[in-house]
Order: sequence, then C-alpha cells, then structure tokens
Amino acid sequence: MKEKLIFTNLVGEAVDTLVAEAGNPRVVVVADTNTAQYVLPLLVNDSKAVAGAEVITVKSGDSNKNLEALSDLWKRLSDLEATRSTLVVNLGGGLVSDLGGFAAATYKRGMKCINVPTTLLAAVDASVGGKTGINFGGVKNQIGAFSEPAAVVISTIYFNTLPQQQILSGYAEMIKHALLEDSATLGRILGYSPVYPLFDSAALLPLIEASVGVKSRIVEQDATETGLRKALNFGHTVGHAFEAFSYKHQSPVPHGYAVAWGMIAELVLSHMQLGFPTETLHQVADYVLKNYGAFEITCDDYPELIKFMRQDKKNASPDAISFTLLEAVGQPKIDCTADIKDIEAALDIYRDLMHLA
Amino acid sequence: MKEKLIFTNLVGEAVDTLVAEAGNPRVVVVADTNTAQYVLPLLVNDSKAVAGAEVITVKSGDSNKNLEALSDLWKRLSDLEATRSTLVVNLGGGLVSDLGGFAAATYKRGMKCINVPTTLLAAVDASVGGKTGINFGGVKNQIGAFSEPAAVVISTIYFNTLPQQQILSGYAEMIKHALLEDSATLGRILGYSPVYPLFDSAALLPLIEASVGVKSRIVEQDATETGLRKALNFGHTVGHAFEAFSYKHQSPVPHGYAVAWGMIAELVLSHMQLGFPTETLHQVADYVLKNYGAFEITCDDYPELIKFMRQDKKNASPDAISFTLLEAVGQPKIDCTADIKDIEAALDIYRDLMHLA
Repeated sequence: MKEKLIFTNLVGEAVDTLVAEAGNPRVVVVADTNTAQYVLPLLVNDSKAVAGAEVITVKSGDSNKNLEALSDLWKRLSDLEATRSTLVVNLGGGLVSDLGGFAAATYKRGMKCINVPTTLLAAVDASVGGKTGINFGGVKNQIGAFSEPAAVVISTIYFNTLPQQQILSGYAEMIKHALLEDSATLGRILGYSPVYPLFDSAALLPLIEASVGVKSRIVEQDATETGLRKALNFGHTVGHAFEAFSYKHQSPVPHGYAVAWGMIAELVLSHMQLGFPTETLHQVADYVLKNYGAFEITCDDYPELIKFMRQDKKNASPDAISFTLLEAVGQPKIDCTADIKDIEAALDIYRDLMHLA
Repeated sequence: MKEKLIFTNLVGEAVDTLVAEAGNPRVVVVADTNTAQYVLPLLVNDSKAVAGAEVITVKSGDSNKNLEALSDLWKRLSDLEATRSTLVVNLGGGLVSDLGGFAAATYKRGMKCINVPTTLLAAVDASVGGKTGINFGGVKNQIGAFSEPAAVVISTIYFNTLPQQQILSGYAEMIKHALLEDSATLGRILGYSPVYPLFDSAALLPLIEASVGVKSRIVEQDATETGLRKALNFGHTVGHAFEAFSYKHQSPVPHGYAVAWGMIAELVLSHMQLGFPTETLHQVADYVLKNYGAFEITCDDYPELIKFMRQDKKNASPDAISFTLLEAVGQPKIDCTADIKDIEAALDIYRDLMHLA
C-alpha cells in the first residue's frame, strides 16, 4: 500500500474529502496535550468530520512515547468500542503519528489512519513512510511496526506558532534528504534560513514537497527497510546516540538537532572511508554550527556513546556497528561498518569542526 | 509473503534445514512452561539449532496471553540484545505462537519467526495464517497484528501425551475447516474419533494436512481479513462469547470446545437465515454433544452473551452483530448480520439440540 500525500493549506477540506472517500466511517482523533489545545480548535472549525469526532488526548513529549501511553490508547479505543472500520486521525508531531499509528496498526489487528502533522519534523519525516512505535527499555523505537497511514495531509499553517527549536529540528531532516538527493537540492536547502524573524512559511511548502518526495521515493522501493531505505538512516546512528546520551546526562536535545550533529560525525566517517568531499563537509558543518550550535561531548563520553550506537536496531550483530555513509551528495552507501577506532577518530574531528576543545 | 508449511515427524531436521536456509542466524526459542519442560528436551536432542539457542519461557495458559507477558517478552529480547536478524522459534500451542509471533512482529519493527506447534489446535489453527496478538481489557485478541511466520513445522509426535481435552479442542477447528470445504471431507472428519484409547495419531497427520490446506488456501486469498478469510470465523462469534462467559462465570472452557458449541448455534442461525440442511446440522450437533458435551447456559445468560458478541472485532458497527454463516457445507457466506431476536431464537434451539432444559 502506498500512502496518499496531500500538500495543501486547506487541511479541513482535505480531511473531509478523505473521510468521505473512506465511506464516512466513525472518526477518532488522537492529539497530544498541545495540539488538542492549540490546533484541534482550528481544525474543528474547518472540518465537519473532525468536529464530529471523538478525541483521545495523549501526553506530549517523546518521553511519553512509551508502553504506558500505548496501553492507555488501546484502552481508550476499547472504551469507545472502536472497530476495525473506525478511522484514526493523528493530529500532532512524531509522538502522535508514532504512537497513534502503532495503536491503529495493532488495535484489533489493524485499523486505518490519516496523519495530519503539526510540526515540520513530522511533516518531512515521522508522518510519512509508515514507521510507527514506542520507546522501550531505554531504547528509542524498540517496539513498533511498519504500517503506512492511508494518507498524510501536509501543510505549513500550523508552523508559525511553533518554537524556533522545533522548526530547526524538522529542517535537519530536510538537510538529510537533500544530501541523499543532489547538489542542486542541497544548495536550495542550505540557501534557506528557517530562523525567525526571517522564517517564511509560504516559501517553505515547496521545499517540504521536494523533501518528502525524496523520502517517499526511497520508502516506496523498500517499505520494510531491508535495503535502500537504510539510506534514510544517514546521520541517525550517531544522532540517536547523541539523543539517548542527552536524555541521560543533559537536558534532552530535540531529535532533529541530534540528527544534524550526527550527520556531521557521519559525514566525517564518509570522508574517511569513502572520500566524501571536504568542501561539502565544511559547508554543511558551518550551516549546522551556525544554526544549531554544537552538541558538547568530550572523549570521556565516547564509550557510552558507542554503547548506544550498538543498540541501534539496524545492527545485524552486536559486534559490528552499521552506518549509512555517503560517497558524495546523492550517493549513499548502506551497510557500511566502522570499528571503534574509526568512530573515535570521527568524533574527534566532529569536535574540531564544532569548535569543541 | 506466504509461510512455508512442512508436515513431518522429523521436526528437528526440518528446523535445522530452515535455520540453515536462513543463513544460520542466532536463534531464540520461545516456549511455555509446559513445552519448556516436556517438549524442548526432545527437540534439543533432534536439532543443533535448538540445542544452541537461547530460551525464553512464558507462562502457559490463555489467561497469560496478556500485556504483561508481552512486555516481559520484549524485555527479554532486549536483554539478549536480539536484532532484526535473530530468528524466533515458537515452540508451543496457540499462546506461544500468538504471543511470540506478536513480539517478533513488533520487536525492532519485525524479526522472522518459525512456528513449531505442539498442540493439535495450534497445528491446525493458531500457528498457520499469521494472526498474532494478546488479550486486552477482557477482550480476546484485542491487540495484535497480521504477521505470517516464515515457516510452520507440523507433526503429531508431541500429541500422544496431550490431555484428551486438548486433542478435542484442536479437532473442533478441523470440523470447522471440513464444514467450509465439502461433504466428503466432513464425512472423513466425523468418521474419525480423536478420543483415547482409540485415538490414532498416525492416522491423524493426513487429516491435519487436509485441514490446514483448507485454511491456508483461504488465508492466501485474503491475508488481512477483508473478505473471504472471514469464513474462518465461522463458529467464533458465538464461540468467543461462550469462552469469555466461561472465564467470567464458570471454570474456563477450552477454545476449541467453545468453537464446537459456537458452531452449533451458528449452524442453527445458518438454517434459519440461509436454509442450511437440518440433517447435517443434527449430524454435527450429535457428534459435538457426544464428544464435547454441552456448554450449559440458560436464557438469563443471553444478554451478557450478546454483549460479548458485540465486542467481536469483526463487527463494523457496535449495533450490528456480524456472522459468517453457511448456506450448505462448503458454501460460507460472510458478513451476515443477525438481530437480537434471531440470536436468542438460535440459542434456544442450541439448548434443545444440547438437551439443556
């Protein structure tokens, strides 16, 4: 099944059309505490289907993407006597599409859902491609399913009130998609500034459409991540380790920031192993440092970071650490492995590029 | 994906071949407390792959097919640092293939598994067809996934020590498959007695193969139960209600017994609505009464039984109760609905046929 991607700022109209096409089933909206308060009232005004829907609210924040929240969601669906024909509308960021999508994929062995992403990160990443799930036992997305939504309605109308951090977090995935695509796209992306007050959400929509296109074409060719889809993991092996590390030792960093920094470390590895061009590496590193700052680590943190990398679900064995690396922009190479020494060297150079002592 | 079905009494050899074909991955065996004690030692003798495997034990009994057991299983897989390439071997009855299959389907968004059913019920039903999941909130299989095992190794070597009840429980599904197939198969099935001391496990293997063939052909045409597969729910709408009722008010009845009795009630409905022949109805009712006894209900129990039927995940709306009914042997009709009055009348006649006051 291929999910339907709709790019429009007339979100309510798009949702009503989708519900009508599905034969006007009962609708249950899953929203987080933020979107329930700030976004849902707007969508209720614009959509008959949403106005008539039951609403299940989940706590916002990635730390709530856990078994308890999933179990609550299953219970709420049971209490509402939802059936397999009930349609779930996930209104929110990645938490909502991951959690609501997994609940929908597993409640009565599967009901349909539509994603309405309300953050840039969810629009370009989480809500597209069918990865759903929860964190478990301290490991991100340890439990989940590949289950595509029936459709995704992508707009920029909810972004103007987002915190700066969230916009940048989403934009990191767009940098990644551009790195997987070609130099022209990378040029467009690095030429745009998603930073207030210059941030222009209208100009952002075509960039999002290009970005989602990259992901969508890759997922279509490899839905369950046995090959090509692993390209999308670029930046994520180190990125997830940074993220997990921050949750344990610092104030948690946003996912996209972790990926941005992770990409720098993995571009360094790409340079070391595959000759990725230095000039582009510096371009991206400068852009990231300027907009995202640096993730501060010392060499004392390496063993724990490497332990987190080992946990990555893409590793076929606990001894080898797998990476997707780049030979050049638009030329990903999946299933690369690196040993501890290489990873430590790459982290050293990452610290240099980020001007860390 | 179509699961591979292997009918053989050389189980260890078959498992080793499958593991070799999969490239000799790490193997984790999921067994229940009974099969870990009585069956695993036999299989360890016969299979190198199983002898070298790690073993996760889950508590036996359908009441343990719950979220707590699932969460434990996920935790054990995490502790073992299982990866997506690790192969799960589910050694046990339906509890193990449902729970182990769902854990495998969702751990790191999916690992492969092989089912080695150790009960007749699992051999002819649970281990084939990819339905996995847990009971939740008092509803059977409320949470789960459609996820087929890579292979199922079916034998009769573990059946000779099974309690009589378990053999009969499995045999009920074989009666169901025969009712969905043709009169000749029904004749073979009703002509065989799975009751000790006459029970002949060697003669049973070809009957099992025929029975699994019926299910397998149906599932192949409709893996996610949008149409034809609903035929396999014959007997289960009432059956699940009987089962749930027994858990609440009596000593729990085995699944297959509940299905056997449920089939009688649904054959009555089939007769009322679609003219299913009386003679065959009586034949099957007599066979069931003789071998299974009767599930004792009074008309005071109807409202609660009907409430359980409403919970069935095949219902598209909470107001209509859906059934698969039979026009004749081999002619199932899916998506039939019955109103409360019809269901009560069918339960009245069920009680007559079962010689209940």
